[in-house]
Amino acid sequence: MAAGQGKVLTPGRLHRRITDLKVPAIEDILKQAAVIKQELALGVEKPFQELIPCYSEDHHTVGQKPITFIRQVAAVCAYPELLNSVNLPEDVKQRARSLLEELDGGTIGGYNIGYAMRSLPNKVAKYIERRDGGVPASPNNVIISWGSTRAILSLMSFIVTEEDPRRTGVMICVPLHPVYTDAIVQCGAVKVECPLDEENGWALDVREIRRSLYKARTHCTPKVLCIANPGNPTGHVQSRKCIEEVIQLAADENLLLFVDEMNQDAVFAPGFQFRSFKKVLFEMGPPYSEEVQLISFHSISNTVFGEGGLRGAYFEFINIDEEVMECIYANVFFWHPPALGMIVLDLMLHPPMPGDPSHYTFVSEKKAVLHKLAMQARLAEEILNIGSGIYCKAIQGAMHAFPRIEIPDNAVKMAQTQGLEPDVFFCRQLLDKTGIIVAPGSDFGQAEGTHHIRITLFEPLEKLKTVLTSIKDFHKTFLQEYS
Amino acid sequence: MAAGQGKVLTPGRLHRRITDLKVPAIEDILKQAAVIKQELALGVEKPFQELIPCYSEDHHTVGQKPITFIRQVAAVCAYPELLNSVNLPEDVKQRARSLLEELDGGTIGGYNIGYAMRSLPNKVAKYIERRDGGVPASPNNVIISWGSTRAILSLMSFIVTEEDPRRTGVMICVPLHPVYTDAIVQCGAVKVECPLDEENGWALDVREIRRSLYKARTHCTPKVLCIANPGNPTGHVQSRKCIEEVIQLAADENLLLFVDEMNQDAVFAPGFQFRSFKKVLFEMGPPYSEEVQLISFHSISNTVFGEGGLRGAYFEFINIDEEVMECIYANVFFWHPPALGMIVLDLMLHPPMPGDPSHYTFVSEKKAVLHKLAMQARLAEEILNIGSGIYCKAIQGAMHAFPRIEIPDNAVKMAQTQGLEPDVFFCRQLLDKTGIIVAPGSDFGQAEGTHHIRITLFEPLEKLKTVLTSIKDFHKTFLQEYS
Repeated sequence: MAAGQGKVLTPGRLHRRITDLKVPAIEDILKQAAVIKQELALGVEKPFQELIPCYSEDHHTVGQKPITFIRQVAAVCAYPELLNSVNLPEDVKQRARSLLEELDGGTIGGYNIGYAMRSLPNKVAKYIERRDGGVPASPNNVIISWGSTRAILSLMSFIVTEEDPRRTGVMICVPLHPVYTDAIVQCGAVKVECPLDEENGWALDVREIRRSLYKARTHCTPKVLCIANPGNPTGHVQSRKCIEEVIQLAADENLLLFVDEMNQDAVFAPGFQFRSFKKVLFEMGPPYSEEVQLISFHSISNTVFGEGGLRGAYFEFINIDEEVMECIYANVFFWHPPALGMIVLDLMLHPPMPGDPSHYTFVSEKKAVLHKLAMQARLAEEILNIGSGIYCKAIQGAMHAFPRIEIPDNAVKMAQTQGLEPDVFFCRQLLDKTGIIVAPGSDFGQAEGTHHIRITLFEPLEKLKTVLTSIKDFHKTFLQEYS
Repeated sequence: MAAGQGKVLTPGRLHRRITDLKVPAIEDILKQAAVIKQELALGVEKPFQELIPCYSEDHHTVGQKPITFIRQVAAVCAYPELLNSVNLPEDVKQRARSLLEELDGGTIGGYNIGYAMRSLPNKVAKYIERRDGGVPASPNNVIISWGSTRAILSLMSFIVTEEDPRRTGVMICVPLHPVYTDAIVQCGAVKVECPLDEENGWALDVREIRRSLYKARTHCTPKVLCIANPGNPTGHVQSRKCIEEVIQLAADENLLLFVDEMNQDAVFAPGFQFRSFKKVLFEMGPPYSEEVQLISFHSISNTVFGEGGLRGAYFEFINIDEEVMECIYANVFFWHPPALGMIVLDLMLHPPMPGDPSHYTFVSEKKAVLHKLAMQARLAEEILNIGSGIYCKAIQGAMHAFPRIEIPDNAVKMAQTQGLEPDVFFCRQLLDKTGIIVAPGSDFGQAEGTHHIRITLFEPLEKLKTVLTSIKDFHKTFLQEYS
């Protein structure tokens, strides 16, 4: 056997769905941070004492406490002997008992297909109806999945059918989480970006979407429009008017709407409230309510609960033929979430009720998360917008600030010589000088010629104040250095 | 908007990777069972009192108890307040404490990328070295995944690159778990079945593999050979000689070996032992040990631990270029298992040591599972092989019996008129007459003209005896009816 000749798996022989994947720039920034961390440990002198990570979406790893009720019930379900514990509230034990009864064979050790396919979808549908003030929801249109990431990829791979030279287009309203770009590459579609209207506080802009759509139609067949509401990373909550306009456009242009609504509980700005695309769609009435295809999802990894590590989400399918749902169900073997992720999803949608021993703590913990986020968001808006050079729109939900930053032409040129996006260049300099780690806007998509950073708002208020001030101060120096 | 005109997601517009998926016949048998269950509840008279499910792979739902140590540590990690409990063994709390320290941010709520990418692969590599008597294993070649199902699909989708008219072939040694067939369809490959040698106790048969390979090469490009050892559903443990011959063939014919070794701990027949493909490969020395590409996996859903509901597995890659591994790592965002699944994987590979408070219970519980399986396997061999008509080979591991059943020509014809595989027809009749649910061999693949059923061996011994006798008796009647 000649060396190498026989190998099946070689870089040149991999499918483009894997070789085309682009590692987000934050990964390289994290490698840079790892080197700095080692240097700090070795006593190398730096203009800062420690790294300050403001990039993560891992809520609990950056200090957010899990909701006690959720973890107590999870622990009892994992080790049912705890039903005998005198140290756990009665409603925790009662809930665990009734969940265990609902599970297939009464255990989290099984795949729990019955719970995933029948019992939990029923409960999810009831939750959606309650949330949307009675708009009907059917369990037959709900699929439980192991978090959103993999499900997004699977769903897209079903829809993407066209091949070269005229591939399926997937439109994304940017900035948007990078997982969509990954999914689009992996399923062999063409990514079509349409920028949100930053001037208008990151509102959906149908004229911009239509412009991108018509331009894209010259080289691909756009079929899907992906939107996050509330936005990640923008924190913007879309208005009823914007949602209506987008639904109208989807109807006119035959687009399937794919809406990330996982931060529906995480709206904290006074006067703002979450409206589901589905509710607006049904209030618009026929033909929209009967024709426009909509897939919406919610996940336990959202800002309030932050249980990403446990994996659990639901997807609701609107105006999708029964036959299509059957095909998706046949594929569902690849979707089964871990039993504990499903339980947490169930608990999130059905929290303790007034009068239950855990009710007060549950409500307080949830409120505390939102209250802290509201304070953090206000602080970010205040500090970042002082003077000029950095511009942060009002943050109404989720957990990030996504300010626009001015980058002088000389810095843009310097970035180009290093083969970097200008905002990546900025993030690297910021890390080098301050120890602060933020994610570059280019990982999320942004209007051409604009530059952003995403700052995750999880540091305690006093520390966040220092962080934001450091970013602001560093930016001033950066402007001076490159102007 | 004209009705239907605008819909993106319609049955006719789905990718063939989803429309081509075939639902295993067991699903229809389960629908039949659901109807019977309702009838029984309504008091409809039947020749039996209750349904007896002998098809499931959900160990815990059919009575197997989880390993106490695993669940205790899991519960503490879910709700760390339990570290203060006086009712849990010290080593449980100690292990939970050290795991929490290892986790990113000390919590199961995060994605735990650091634990998944660095800490746990290190520990897995050490386990593999210990298992294989010192054959070196590198953490860089280990990927942690959320169970095997989805990872099989992802890996295949990287390897499958050819398109019509000459697609990539994936060979499977049948009978094999239906998840491989699903993955092959979903990634657009051609399935090439090569039957194991039933006469020789389900041994790998290189002549048969070679024959299938050459035949397949007339219409596709076979690249991968999938094998389960110990076999599911066969329960056969492959000999060193068979493994060597297959490795030789892989070298000669440029095939990547994809080996399911998740039941490596579940060998219970006296005189038999598990040998990993990797160990044999390295003992064969160069050029094999340097050239033959091998992917092997192990999972917490195995027969002994049965924690399928928690989702956790590792994949080891042998002789795969670093560059390919980097591509796979870039994709790994889609693989992250739930934190609790990773913890259970960690615990499975690093059980309590002699002297630890939980050691005795852990070892006893594990031994009890294997001892019971050994008794159940012997009982199945004994009862099924009495007289003629049903032939069950020796079962050395895993948890199923996969006997061959004679089906008379008249029954085969009757099945054909109903559009059913003959063994599906048999399973449906068996269910109707006895209430026993078993899986048809055709779901797993079998040599042409042979028929099998898969009986999962989890009922208590006395009940299993009754079940096996009922199957045997029913088969006699079936033979009489159709001869």
